[in-house]
Amino acid sequence: MADSLAKAETAVLEANGRDVTRAEESGTAAALVDRLRLTEDRIAGMVEGLRDLAALPDPVGDIIRGWTSPNGMQIRQIRVPFGVVGIIYEARPNVTADAGGICLKSGNAALLRGSSSAAESNAAIVEALQAGLVDAGLPAKAIQLVPGPREVTSELMAARGLVDVLIPRGGAGLIDTVVRNSQVPVIETGVGNCHLYVDAGADQQMALEILINAKTQRPSVCNAVETLLVHADVADSFLPKALRTLADRGVTVHGDARVATYGDVVPATEADFAAEYLSLDIAAGVVDSLDAALSHIRRYSTGHSETIVTESQASAARFAAEVDAAAVLVNASSRFVDGGEFGFGAEIGISTQKLHARGPMGLPEMTSSKYVVTGSGQTR
Amino acid sequence: MADSLAKAETAVLEANGRDVTRAEESGTAAALVDRLRLTEDRIAGMVEGLRDLAALPDPVGDIIRGWTSPNGMQIRQIRVPFGVVGIIYEARPNVTADAGGICLKSGNAALLRGSSSAAESNAAIVEALQAGLVDAGLPAKAIQLVPGPREVTSELMAARGLVDVLIPRGGAGLIDTVVRNSQVPVIETGVGNCHLYVDAGADQQMALEILINAKTQRPSVCNAVETLLVHADVADSFLPKALRTLADRGVTVHGDARVATYGDVVPATEADFAAEYLSLDIAAGVVDSLDAALSHIRRYSTGHSETIVTESQASAARFAAEVDAAAVLVNASSRFVDGGEFGFGAEIGISTQKLHARGPMGLPEMTSSKYVVTGSGQTR
Repeated sequence: MADSLAKAETAVLEANGRDVTRAEESGTAAALVDRLRLTEDRIAGMVEGLRDLAALPDPVGDIIRGWTSPNGMQIRQIRVPFGVVGIIYEARPNVTADAGGICLKSGNAALLRGSSSAAESNAAIVEALQAGLVDAGLPAKAIQLVPGPREVTSELMAARGLVDVLIPRGGAGLIDTVVRNSQVPVIETGVGNCHLYVDAGADQQMALEILINAKTQRPSVCNAVETLLVHADVADSFLPKALRTLADRGVTVHGDARVATYGDVVPATEADFAAEYLSLDIAAGVVDSLDAALSHIRRYSTGHSETIVTESQASAARFAAEVDAAAVLVNASSRFVDGGEFGFGAEIGISTQKLHARGPMGLPEMTSSKYVVTGSGQTR
Repeated sequence: MADSLAKAETAVLEANGRDVTRAEESGTAAALVDRLRLTEDRIAGMVEGLRDLAALPDPVGDIIRGWTSPNGMQIRQIRVPFGVVGIIYEARPNVTADAGGICLKSGNAALLRGSSSAAESNAAIVEALQAGLVDAGLPAKAIQLVPGPREVTSELMAARGLVDVLIPRGGAGLIDTVVRNSQVPVIETGVGNCHLYVDAGADQQMALEILINAKTQRPSVCNAVETLLVHADVADSFLPKALRTLADRGVTVHGDARVATYGDVVPATEADFAAEYLSLDIAAGVVDSLDAALSHIRRYSTGHSETIVTESQASAARFAAEVDAAAVLVNASSRFVDGGEFGFGAEIGISTQKLHARGPMGLPEMTSSKYVVTGSGQTR
């Protein structure tokens, strides 16, 4: 598939050019057009991604555990594909190659429901992937686009028994729609209103570095920090330099009344504390205790990645135990909550739900399991 | 909770007596009244079940895996409770103690939505369990009944964000209703249209013993066999004795036209092959090949437990690989697909879905996980 996609570069760029032109002519916002646009570099990235995937161990057939029962039966729990995986996603056409590759590598057939704005790009990419499948002696239909009008998405969500799992990849609105309306089991990915709590007695230089990294290294992603909470005991010493450094990096701080006493901030509303900005904005508040921080996080967290910076073993232990999220970080940037950083080699998304998979999802999370019991005539 | 339930025996039996009287007066079928009825023995069984649970290892806090990343962060994936688990179930009041105990042992709060026919029994049992919780210094509300009219079940299914997972326990109708209507994630348990395929060259004595065991040892449960498929090559030698032995055990055979040539059977309809009888009935058909058996199973299986009896390594391997079910058995009775038989110590049900858990669910399957990342100031 990688070879075949590399060979199809011209065709994919031409198809993408038509999508981009149509988007520009219909007045699509520049940021969206940028997400839609493919370049030689971006195609090379897709090709490279497929090669990396191919090199990963095959999760299918892994024996998760196995034992011999007292009556002599061998019981093995074996990793098997889900079957048919539907991916519903937004404008980025690179998801087409990425999701198709991950589904294939995990033994699943892929039904890819992309955005209509990327229709021609996606069709050209899937044509290339299918040519690769056929060259490898695999059925072309193992990776298919799901074309058609909006109603088709509803049909996909109603296809219980035909589609084994649906994974929405995109913004909060898309994910919420799929989660609420699907009769097919859904794996929910990605909304991250992530907090960074600076505890009393934290290493302030460390806290500052983690704050700047988690907020500014890539603000548009789900593991970027969106709210800073500072213990009252260190507000005097930490907040002035934090506000200055954030301002230097172009970050707008939406602060509560106590934060506002330390510098120039936009007054924070309730909505700010609930927001996943995905931009160079951060909400900030002062809390009187670890309990108050935990309570704030309990109220506003989307259960993605929550960070404490602390030198106190007791605070670290309580934060790790009591925060209910896919990932809890002690003295490290939330930007590390990522399949690549976790060493998974591939990532279909970061699950914020509690069933099946929670946190970064690699290839094993794209599988189910089956018990195989081998006996010699055992009966009860 | 076990001590407290044992002490409450009289109160529970009195409450149950009122439920039973009401059921009998309203003309409830005898089989349903029997399921509803508690006896000293049944209460002793519930108490014993709670003691067994208490002795099992605590799944919460288990480190599922852990590693150190190249930059020195320690990453651990830790088992944590779901949070709030809702159980929706039918008449048997013993489920109240069993489900309450399993939820508590796995660190979850339990919302128990039982049948209105068992309302007084369930209330008396939960009162005893709560007294036990309080004695142990735990919050009484960790286990609660959800009373009220039918609409309350709909509210429970709509309580996304408040309830973490719903588990329906009961018949196919209840499970289907919950799966289709719930916005809360559901773990689907239990419908089993299980097949037993007797391959060409099977050990026929073994096949007969497994057939009789899987059909008659406890016909009312989901891992009992419901359809017998026999390879044409062994139909002449196997079916006459199989039909005779099934008849001797009081089993009614619903056979296809080819089975009918070997003995007295009720003609099988399409509905027979789709049925989960849960009674001393079995559908039976002759197939011309392993492929035909696989194709029949693909069409009618509910994905619970499927069995092959064969002496052929090749047939066993293909059957194990190609049958899409929670459990595949080679030369063993499907009655072994059970949390107790698998050595899990407790079982909340047998999942027939592909996400999260598939097959018998023990305590670990009643949990989620959380990544805890511990660093020393790492940034990207």
